[in-house]
This record gives sequence, C-alpha cells and structure tokens, in this order.
Amino acid sequence: MIALEGSDGAGKTTQAHLLGEYLSAKGIACVSVREPGGTDLGEAIRNLVLDPAHPEIDPVAELFLFAAARAQLVREVIRPALASGQVVLVERYAHSTVAYQGYGAGIDLGVVDLVNRWATGGIVPDLTIVLDADPATLKSRRGHLVDDRIEQRGLAFQRRVREGYWACAAGDPDRVSLIDATRDEFAVHRDIVARVDTTLADPSATRARS
Amino acid sequence: MIALEGSDGAGKTTQAHLLGEYLSAKGIACVSVREPGGTDLGEAIRNLVLDPAHPEIDPVAELFLFAAARAQLVREVIRPALASGQVVLVERYAHSTVAYQGYGAGIDLGVVDLVNRWATGGIVPDLTIVLDADPATLKSRRGHLVDDRIEQRGLAFQRRVREGYWACAAGDPDRVSLIDATRDEFAVHRDIVARVDTTLADPSATRARS
Repeated sequence: MIALEGSDGAGKTTQAHLLGEYLSAKGIACVSVREPGGTDLGEAIRNLVLDPAHPEIDPVAELFLFAAARAQLVREVIRPALASGQVVLVERYAHSTVAYQGYGAGIDLGVVDLVNRWATGGIVPDLTIVLDADPATLKSRRGHLVDDRIEQRGLAFQRRVREGYWACAAGDPDRVSLIDATRDEFAVHRDIVARVDTTLADPSATRARS
Repeated sequence: MIALEGSDGAGKTTQAHLLGEYLSAKGIACVSVREPGGTDLGEAIRNLVLDPAHPEIDPVAELFLFAAARAQLVREVIRPALASGQVVLVERYAHSTVAYQGYGAGIDLGVVDLVNRWATGGIVPDLTIVLDADPATLKSRRGHLVDDRIEQRGLAFQRRVREGYWACAAGDPDRVSLIDATRDEFAVHRDIVARVDTTLADPSATRARS
C-alpha cells in the first residue's frame, strides 16, 4: 500500500497517475483511490466537506467526516484489495488528518491518532510519499483557480499543514518520505519510483514495523 | 438541556412536541433539535445514514458520521442557545451512540466514549429521558411502515440497543431516567414533566456532577 500526501496543488493526482502507469507497465495489479472518496459514501462526504457553500463546518465535525470516509474506504476497497494481493495507491490517508485537522486546525494530536487508528482499522501504508512544497509557491502556481473550502484558509494554515507533514516524516522516517514537489513532474516521478521500487523489493522491511 | 432517547417508534418526536408545548406554556424559551440533523450539515448526514440505498455503511464510518453531525450541532446551535439562557431539547444525543454503535454494533465502548466527549465538547444534558419499550412491541406498533436502514437490522440488534440504554441509566441514574413508553402518550408525558420540573427547579444538582 502506497499513500501520496501533500497540500492541494502539490501534484498528487498527476503523480498517482504516473505511478499507476509505472506499476501497470511492470505488470503489478493496482487499485487507485482518493480520499475523501473512493466509495459512494466517501464521494458524498467529499461533496459535503469541500463545498465552499459549507464554510461553517466545525473542525471537529470535519475530523469525523474525513474519518467516516476513511473507515468506509478501508473496509469496502483497501482491505479487500490488499487481501487479494493488489497494490493499493491512495491519494491522502491518515497523515492528511494529522496535518490538516491536527497541525492545521489545532485538534489534540492524541485524539487525531485514536480516530485514525479506528478509521484505518490498523491498516498502515508500506510507503507514504509526501509531496512537499512551500504553500506560497503552490498558490502562485494555482493562479486564478477557485479555491475549495479548505484551500480558502490561507497561507498560515497551509504552513502549519506543511509542518504537520514534516512531523509525520520525522516520526516515521522509514515509511514516510518527503519529496521536493516544486520540481519538474518527471523528476518528482523518478524520485517516487526509486522509493517505491525499494519498498516493492522488500515490503517486509516496512510491514514488520507496522 | 434535556435529551429524549429511545428506539425508533418509542414516541420521541411526539414527546418532544408535548414537552416543548409544556415549556412554552410556562414561558420558558426553548430550542428543539433532532439528531442527526438540526444544521445544514447534520441534515445532509441524516440523509446519508438513514437512506436504505446505503445499506453497506461500515459501523465505524457510521460512528464517525453521527459524531460529525453532533459536533456541528453542538457548536452551531446547542452551545449558543445554552449560553443565551434557553432550554435546549434534543431528540437523540450521545447515549444514542453508546446504545446503537456501542451495544448494538459492538464498537469498543471506550472509543465510543472518547468520540462522544469530543463531539459534544463536554456538553452533557442536565436530564436524559429514555423512552423504554420492548422492540417487538414497537415493531408491531409500527405495523407496515417502511423501515429505514437502521431499523432494518432486526430485533436482536434492537434488544442490544435497549440494553445499552439500560446501561446508560444504570451508570448515571441522577441524570438518565427510563420511562415506560408502551403506555398512553399522555401518561408518558406526565412522567416526563415530573422529571423535567425537578431538574428545572434545581439544575445545579445535575450540572454539578457533569
């Protein structure tokens, strides 16, 4: 299981697509999903949480909504896919909750951790790639695109999110890798492939620590 | 703050209505809400969780969805109403999660408790009335009405839910009262009024224990 993490605009969708093609070319069966989403329930929750018409969602309510989408995704898609021997590639997972609801919104990290453990049922990615970039750089890259509800929170929030990801990487360096996402997308892709190949060669090295 | 609890069909909506009228007649400003719901977000969540078209919602996802609706309701409606001196009357609250997701669906009661504490932000009703009835009696009363997604779980589930409510009452007898809901609705109403009057006369007696 591989998770792609990082702020909006860091290139997660592009890199998930490139990585999915790379794995397919190697003959590896792969399921790609995104959070929140990936199930009927999760997509309905995605519409609720990202809709700019709901600016008033309480941070604790948001924590639980993302957790609900994750719980459903794990039981309905991720666990069965892993059990059948497929590689699962997920855009956003538990570290997003640490970064956004914990570091960004300031919810107690112990609560975030417990909610994550119940939502994931203990299923931890073998490898998490964090596409790391300065929020101001990402914002100028996005240009005039309309921000969703979470992107509207501004640069100070996004900087705390980035620090949250740094903390995740520092706390679990064997399974969480930061990659500089401000470079050319193919350079980023090559770095991701190098880390993925290492994990595929010896998944037990990371699984043993889960 | 007063919560009305109990299985579907036990008469919560009827009793909330009668109690609201009673309080209004006494000149007490009162806000009535129901869970899940009571906010735009909560009503959207209500449609998700009760829709029979979503039979596959995972119990842990459901726990988090109800918690999200509750967190939003507390911050947007309940806390401001209490702060302005109004009585809040809520149909379903944290004990529903203990009864349905804890006892009914078998989720660890420690997790249910922690999720409840975060969802409620520590706001505990001064009085909770549980409308208690045998599930088989309620089912025959409902007759041919179409069951929602949770009602479809059957009598064994509903019996565990009832036992969950009993446990809530046993664990906090000063604040949680069981009332026999199989009687005439005005007899039930009179019992509720007697308990509510006691709480209104001395709310500090229960608040001091919260």
